[in-house]
Amino acid sequence: MKYSSQLIEQAVQAFSKLPGVGRKSALRMVLHLVQNDRLAVNDIIDSLTIMNSDLKTCKRCFNFSDHELCEICRNSSRNQQVVCVVESIRDVIAIEETDQFHGTYHVLGGVISPIDGVGPSDLNFEALFNRVKDEGVGELIMGLSPTIEGETTIFYISKKLRESNVKISILARGISFGGELEYADGLTLGRSILTRTSYVHLED
Amino acid sequence: MKYSSQLIEQAVQAFSKLPGVGRKSALRMVLHLVQNDRLAVNDIIDSLTIMNSDLKTCKRCFNFSDHELCEICRNSSRNQQVVCVVESIRDVIAIEETDQFHGTYHVLGGVISPIDGVGPSDLNFEALFNRVKDEGVGELIMGLSPTIEGETTIFYISKKLRESNVKISILARGISFGGELEYADGLTLGRSILTRTSYVHLED
Repeated sequence: MKYSSQLIEQAVQAFSKLPGVGRKSALRMVLHLVQNDRLAVNDIIDSLTIMNSDLKTCKRCFNFSDHELCEICRNSSRNQQVVCVVESIRDVIAIEETDQFHGTYHVLGGVISPIDGVGPSDLNFEALFNRVKDEGVGELIMGLSPTIEGETTIFYISKKLRESNVKISILARGISFGGELEYADGLTLGRSILTRTSYVHLED
Repeated sequence: MKYSSQLIEQAVQAFSKLPGVGRKSALRMVLHLVQNDRLAVNDIIDSLTIMNSDLKTCKRCFNFSDHELCEICRNSSRNQQVVCVVESIRDVIAIEETDQFHGTYHVLGGVISPIDGVGPSDLNFEALFNRVKDEGVGELIMGLSPTIEGETTIFYISKKLRESNVKISILARGISFGGELEYADGLTLGRSILTRTSYVHLED
């Protein structure tokens, strides 16, 4: 034990379990809290305590929520007939940050991945299919990563919903904004030529 | 509010006050805790709670301690007559990690820095001078950074202790191990030529 304090050691161990935090960063955080910011210690304790006891999962879309239904599901100004299907809550946050989507979400909790032992029964498909059936969903946007697992999941959903009238769309694929053409992968570049779109001159 | 949960928002705010943690990393930590590791949440809460209430400062060397005196001060196998003077507890930990020092420490809590408004009365000098006088300290090692503030602090200590018999030493200055000569700064390089040492061939 290098810290001359078992209490510091315990706190460092607790913090070093956080993602992206090693023992050195954990020590830096703990020393910062002890030396400069005792109020911040209470903030962390209080926020984690209440989060641990009160945080719920939205029973409709599986987003985090402080209530039975999350803010997005309860918001009547959002289009409840357009549902964006995502892998995780992180993706909900990423899409919300763009301010470009005004429908609702459905968090699957993962994607189908036989290698990782994740099958359809491990994910929130049943609730999704019930939403499509019961809520008159008009469009499902597949907000899933363009990986093999993502594509498999999209295929599974589209197959299961073949009988329904719901429109299934995927995110546009192509060259990223700000990306350098010469470093784009061949598949993306080749597809982006085949699916090229008309140039629209934006008025000043 | 982008998180559809005020509880998540509060936790993200608390974590983003940690050093080196922005809102994105804070969110990653909070989501990790909520989604994967509810036990780790309790570890953090418990360790911070007990640290906040029970962590003391060693009344002799100002290191962190679980008791009145820290582990290092209570360790009779360590040389209590050799005291390494450091700026912060971080430095104690850095030196302890080298396993090369077997004396005790004295944490000043900073260095003299008129620009930052830190004068001698803000630091733990009085206790240091009392230790030298009362405990028969034989050597003070100045474990301070070779900055203007560090040099000023060393000068202040040596002036104050001019009357005493304590030996004052500083850390060796020179080229860092693994450093490239061509990138060493001129001051360090020049001094390292002036203070060159005899080459000792290590036996195999």
